[in-house]
This record gives sequence, C-alpha cells and structure tokens, in this order.
Amino acid sequence: MASFLSTQPYKGTRDFFPPDMRFQRWLFDRLRASVGSFGFEEYDGPMLEPFELYAAKTGEEIVNQQLYWMMDRGDRKLAVRPEMTPTMARMVASKVNELPKPVRWFSIPNVWRYERPQRGRLREHWQLNVDILGGDRLLADAECLGVALDIMKRLGGAEHVSLKVNNRRLVDHLFTKELALSAETALAATKAIDVRAKVGDEVYAKMLTDIGISPAQRERLERFFKSTFAEVERDLPCEGVEELKALFALMKESGAADQVVFDPTVLRGLDYYTGTVFEAYDVSPENRRALFGGGRYDDLLGLFGKTKLSGVGFGVGDVGLRNFCEVHGLMPELAAGVDVFVSLPKAEYRAQAERVASGLRAQGLSVVTPLAVEGFGSQLKQATKLGARYAVLFGDTELAEGKVLLKNLVKGEQKTVTLDELLGAHAVPAPIQRNLPAWW
Amino acid sequence: MASFLSTQPYKGTRDFFPPDMRFQRWLFDRLRASVGSFGFEEYDGPMLEPFELYAAKTGEEIVNQQLYWMMDRGDRKLAVRPEMTPTMARMVASKVNELPKPVRWFSIPNVWRYERPQRGRLREHWQLNVDILGGDRLLADAECLGVALDIMKRLGGAEHVSLKVNNRRLVDHLFTKELALSAETALAATKAIDVRAKVGDEVYAKMLTDIGISPAQRERLERFFKSTFAEVERDLPCEGVEELKALFALMKESGAADQVVFDPTVLRGLDYYTGTVFEAYDVSPENRRALFGGGRYDDLLGLFGKTKLSGVGFGVGDVGLRNFCEVHGLMPELAAGVDVFVSLPKAEYRAQAERVASGLRAQGLSVVTPLAVEGFGSQLKQATKLGARYAVLFGDTELAEGKVLLKNLVKGEQKTVTLDELLGAHAVPAPIQRNLPAWW
Repeated sequence: MASFLSTQPYKGTRDFFPPDMRFQRWLFDRLRASVGSFGFEEYDGPMLEPFELYAAKTGEEIVNQQLYWMMDRGDRKLAVRPEMTPTMARMVASKVNELPKPVRWFSIPNVWRYERPQRGRLREHWQLNVDILGGDRLLADAECLGVALDIMKRLGGAEHVSLKVNNRRLVDHLFTKELALSAETALAATKAIDVRAKVGDEVYAKMLTDIGISPAQRERLERFFKSTFAEVERDLPCEGVEELKALFALMKESGAADQVVFDPTVLRGLDYYTGTVFEAYDVSPENRRALFGGGRYDDLLGLFGKTKLSGVGFGVGDVGLRNFCEVHGLMPELAAGVDVFVSLPKAEYRAQAERVASGLRAQGLSVVTPLAVEGFGSQLKQATKLGARYAVLFGDTELAEGKVLLKNLVKGEQKTVTLDELLGAHAVPAPIQRNLPAWW
Repeated sequence: MASFLSTQPYKGTRDFFPPDMRFQRWLFDRLRASVGSFGFEEYDGPMLEPFELYAAKTGEEIVNQQLYWMMDRGDRKLAVRPEMTPTMARMVASKVNELPKPVRWFSIPNVWRYERPQRGRLREHWQLNVDILGGDRLLADAECLGVALDIMKRLGGAEHVSLKVNNRRLVDHLFTKELALSAETALAATKAIDVRAKVGDEVYAKMLTDIGISPAQRERLERFFKSTFAEVERDLPCEGVEELKALFALMKESGAADQVVFDPTVLRGLDYYTGTVFEAYDVSPENRRALFGGGRYDDLLGLFGKTKLSGVGFGVGDVGLRNFCEVHGLMPELAAGVDVFVSLPKAEYRAQAERVASGLRAQGLSVVTPLAVEGFGSQLKQATKLGARYAVLFGDTELAEGKVLLKNLVKGEQKTVTLDELLGAHAVPAPIQRNLPAWW
C-alpha cells in the first residue's frame, strides 16, 4: 500500500484558506490604514537572520528554548526571526545618517517561536511592529500609545481596551536604590516577575529565593505591585515616576486619559527595554489578555556601532486581534467578491465570452468564465456558489444581434443590453471598494 | 574594543527600506488586481513545512543542493519552503471534497533556495503563484496563459513579452516512442536539457552521454529543438501535439495569438509537470530572460491520497518583475504619501495640534505631528522632506480665534480657515487613492 503524505500543516502553524486569508487581508489593511494615518512607512527584512542578532538582546528564554535555527551550506548559523525589532534596529543602523528623523516605521512580518501550541500562542504568527526612533522621548511614547488606541478604534473595539503603563526606570530605582539588588539580580528578578502569570506563584517565589531575594524584599515587591500611582509618587520619587507623570499628562491632552492606567506589574520580558513599557489589555472579563506589548529601548542601535538613537515601539499579533474580533462580535462579513459570471453554454460562444470578460475586467471588475461548456442551469448554480453579483448570458439570438442578457443575481432581475452598453457605459456598477476604511 | 554586529542582511537576501517597500506594495497590488479580475482567491500557508513534502516531487537538485532545512526541538525535519506548489497541493488535498471546482487560487509567498547569489537569483524572493485545479484542461491552460499576459499588461509592458509554450506529452512521445528511451533515462534527459543554458553545451553533451544517449539520438534531439510547430505536427503526431494545437486556437480566440509561440526547448525542471509547459520571456535584446514559468501537473494531489484533480499553474518572481520594470522604464513614482503636517511651535499648542491631527486622520488622511517643539522654519523644512501636501500652522492669534493657517506646500499658497471648516468640510482634498489600478 502506498503511504500518503499528511495534509496537515506543521504543528502550531496555520493554513490560510481563502476565507481566513480574506480576514487576514482585512485586518492588515486596517492596521496599515491606522499606522499610515500617522505617517508611518512600511519596511521588511529577510525571514532568516544571523543567529547573533538575537543572542545579544532578545533574551535568554527565547534564544535558548524557542529559536528555530540551522547551519547553512556555508556553515553560517542562521535563525528564523523570533521577533522583528533586531532586524529593524539593524536596518536603521545601516542608514542612520541618511534617514530623516524621527524615523516612523512599521512592518507586518511572520515570526517563529518554538512554543507548546495553546490558545493564542502559535509557532508561527504575524505581528504588526510599530517603531519611532528619534524625537522627544515622551512625545514619541505618547504617539505610540495613540497609535495602539487608534488601531483598536478602527477594529471597532476601542472601548474594550485599556493600556497598562509602567516604566523600567521606576522598577530599576526600586531594585537598585531601595532593595539594593545588583544589576544582575535585578535583571533576573525582572524575568521572574515577567513570567509569573505563566509559571504560577509557587515557581515564581522559588525563582526569587534562588537568586537571593529575601522574604522581606519579596514583600516589598508585593507592596510595589499593588501600588497606586499616587503611592509610588510619594514612596519612590525618581526619574521614572516623572516620566510616567508627563506621559499621563500627554495622554490626557490627547483625550485618552480614560484608557491609560498605571500598572506596576507590567515589565515586558525583553532585555532591551529601558524606559516606558506598556501592554494593551482586553478589559472584558471573558477575554482578559494582553494584545499589544511594547516599550522604549535606548541602547539597541549600540549593537551595530557607536550611534545613539533612542526608540520606542510595540508589537501586536494577528492571533490575539482575530480572537478579539471574534469575542466582541467584530468579525466583518467578507464575500469572495466576484462581480460578474460570464456563461459559456456552447464552445462556439467562447470568443464572444472572452471579449465580454476582458472588457469587464478592464472596468476593474472581477469576472469569472466557466472552464467547461455546460447548460445555463448548472452555470447559474456555479455563479451563485461563487457569490457573483451579476451573470452575463447569451444564446444564438443575442449573439447575432450583438446583445447579451445581464442578470442581477442579487435582485433576480434581468435585462437585455447591447455589447456597447455593457462594455462602454458601466452597466455593471463598480465593485464595492473592499477593505478601505469605513469613512472613505 | 567592542565588536559590533554587522548591519548587512544575510547573503542573497534583501532589506526593504520604505522606498523599496512602496514598489513591492505597488507590484503586489497590481498582481492582486490582475488575478482578482479573473476571480482568483488568495491563500497562504506556513513558511516551514515537513521536509518530505519536497522530497517527493520538487526535484533532486533543489532538495539535495538548495533546500534550507533543520531539525526542530521535537526532532522533526523541517524545510524552509523552496516553492509554494506543494503547500497549495497539500491544502487543496485536505479539503478537496468541500472546495467548489474549479479551484482558482493565488498566493505571494517568500521562498528560499541556497543559490550562489547573482543577478536575478537570490536566496530569498517573493513569488506570485497562480493555480487552477479542475475544469477543462485546455480551457484552464488558456486561462493561465491569459492571466500571465494580463499581469504584464497591467505593469505596462505587455508588448515586450512572449509566451513560449511546449507540451511534456510531446517530449515524452519523442523520448519513449521515437528515441525508445526508458522512463528513467527520459527523466534524466529532461533535466539535462532544462539546465543546458546554465551549464553550457559541453557539460550538457557529457550529461547526455553519461546516461547512455547516443550521438544519433542527440542529433535527433537537436533537430527537435529547432522544429517549427508545422514540423512536429508532421513528424511527431501525438496527443501532446493535439493539445498544443487546441491551446493555440484558444489563445487566438482570446486575441493573444501574436504573443504565444511554440518553443520545443521549454521543458521546466520540476518533476511534476505532465502536459502544457510554458515560460514568459522578455523579448527585448537587452533583457532576454524567463519571467514566468509554469505548466500542468496531473498527479500532484496523489501524494496525499487517492483523489485525482488535475491542475495547471505558474510562478513569477518579484526580482525579475522589478528588473523588467527598470529595464523598460516602467518604474512608478511612489511618494511617501503624507497628506498633512501639523506644526507644533509651542508645547502649549499640543492639545490643539492633537485635535486637528486626529480630526484629519478621521477623514482618511495621513497626518504627521512633530515630536519636538521647534520654530515654524525648521518644521516646514521637515514637512517638505516628508513630501507633505499641506501644512497646518497656528500661533496665539489663530488659537484664540479657533482658526488655523492651511498652507498648500505644492502650490505655495495659504489661507486661514476655521477649525470647523478644516475638520468638517474636507478643506484638504482626499488623498490620491494610491496603488489602485489606473482605471479605477
């Protein structure tokens, strides 16, 4: 017996059949419309990068446990990108003197991590990456938060989203000044706190004990995690608090004060964050999960040379956004979008059918012609299955008179029109401009 | 001394900075408009696939010498896709009974091959894949050729392109009936012929000798490669010739007879082709190269089970198309596309600037606000650098009166408008709808 290959995609990845792909396009078009409205420009880079690009700053867990990597045939160690920020930093660094500042860039790459597949966590997913490099730090941070909120508005779900904001400098101040931790211990503590929700309280406590955090220090940490902003202002005055205060004022100015909250538990796992860090959360009780994550990185370009250019950015994944749309009833109805079906009941009609089809295509319409000679009945059935709005039919009489029957499949009406009318006068109304923002 | 990471991308790959990305978007939008006008639907699949998917039919050279592959942490052998057809076949096979026939699908994936980087051959490139499964074989083949021609028309260069068509059945007829080669020798000969231009005549002759082809047989082959269609009709009557004849008649019916020629040297290296094979060539003397390649595959779905569904398809790469546009002066001028720059000469104006910017964004405009407080002069310079069409300026007087200065940066004119006029009455004309087909 022959052994057949599996039709399943690799574990933790997805096949996008046309209906899924239509949603993906709709989503990406909305993301592009949002960031485009703030003047961000799109970039892209290779799917495989030198391994060292991630070894430096991406963080141990990802590099040691989650990276897909290989040796190429010339013995170079390559990684499948697990995130886009290092590629972006590399590209900006390569043209740092030519690029007009501030740099406002975005990309929607697919990224890979070897994870145990579970709801919302896949091995391959697509991620919008939005970054600003240069400019006033706080104005840039505020614009980044503004873009995140604009995206959720364009998906129709702004009211379900809250931005939780913290500042790494504030946390560093607590760690090094008040708890007197070494830089190394502080970093290890940050990582433990970041994975707390994932590993559970018990493992978390053990992690802290293992790196030498005393019960008293742990208690101080717990108190910090429960602080209001007024409390940290009083107890931990520092530059990080000042930045947060200024950022909250800017968000109020932008009319978004209600959607931005201080959350001392937000830390972000990546090693390169140095200032503002934030996550966007779905506030509905049935879907409490982080959608966006991002923050400010001051030293990332330093990997590539002596240039200093501070940046801020965030990433948001397609899986979470699709889930958000599903949970909140925001999934759009996206038809396949065929405008006209031109029938072919006899082989001799093909030249005429071709002429009609290509004329209608030149009007910007999506036109399907059948790939078999069949009767009107079965061809109309095919047209309906494709969701075509119109069908063009003709027999010997129409052909002789230079006419066709134009059938509106939605209304069930039909009329006879000349070929000139059909191809010259836009007898079929223009297609709906799918995927454009609602207000266009 | 610190050692810095390289800012260069991995050999044979490209970084897409915003100007390159704008061209890539423009190109892909045109490709989507073309295939969309024929009713094709977009799909996508994972970047990594099980290694076996390619081992079966993709062809020895690619699998043994050009595949990027790795073991995952669960000891599964994965390949970075070198082509999209096997993924498409896997996906169609997985839903073969549910999908309405004929299946008209397209995708624009990035694919990877370990090649020596040279002009037009990179390790990572993007490739439009167009496939029809089901329907009448010849009508489907003709539609495929029609789509290829339509794409070149939409890029503005149809007159530079010629489709060279052949049929694997005709070649098989010559190999097995006239030259009496075994199936194995016939396949090896096909591969030698396919790489002839790449390896040179001498290596080619040796390859043929090595597989046992006699000088007389080689001479017969040479004669075949120089045949006109009338000659093969006379000397090699067979099913393959009948198919070619019918296909040429269909292309004539579609008004494309001039752009389709018989070329017995076109064979296509991939193992899975079984009928019509074709390549699209740039006919200009300075750029003689294959742009598209494709053909009919009858047994591809058989890898996944007992279903039979014949298909035809082609692939066309982004590198060749960009090169084609460059050589023929078809590169579009694509501006960054900022519509309005809202200036910020004083920090106190920010709330007002934000209100203006977000109101204009809600009109579908791309609006940039500065990330630093600076004088009018340097902000106008920034606006011009960004290619903004308009600038919004205001000082204390305008702010007090609820007005702004709207400056048309293209014409150099300016006028004072109220905020209501600016945000309510579309004082800034709608953006040009970039990337839509010219006739929309």
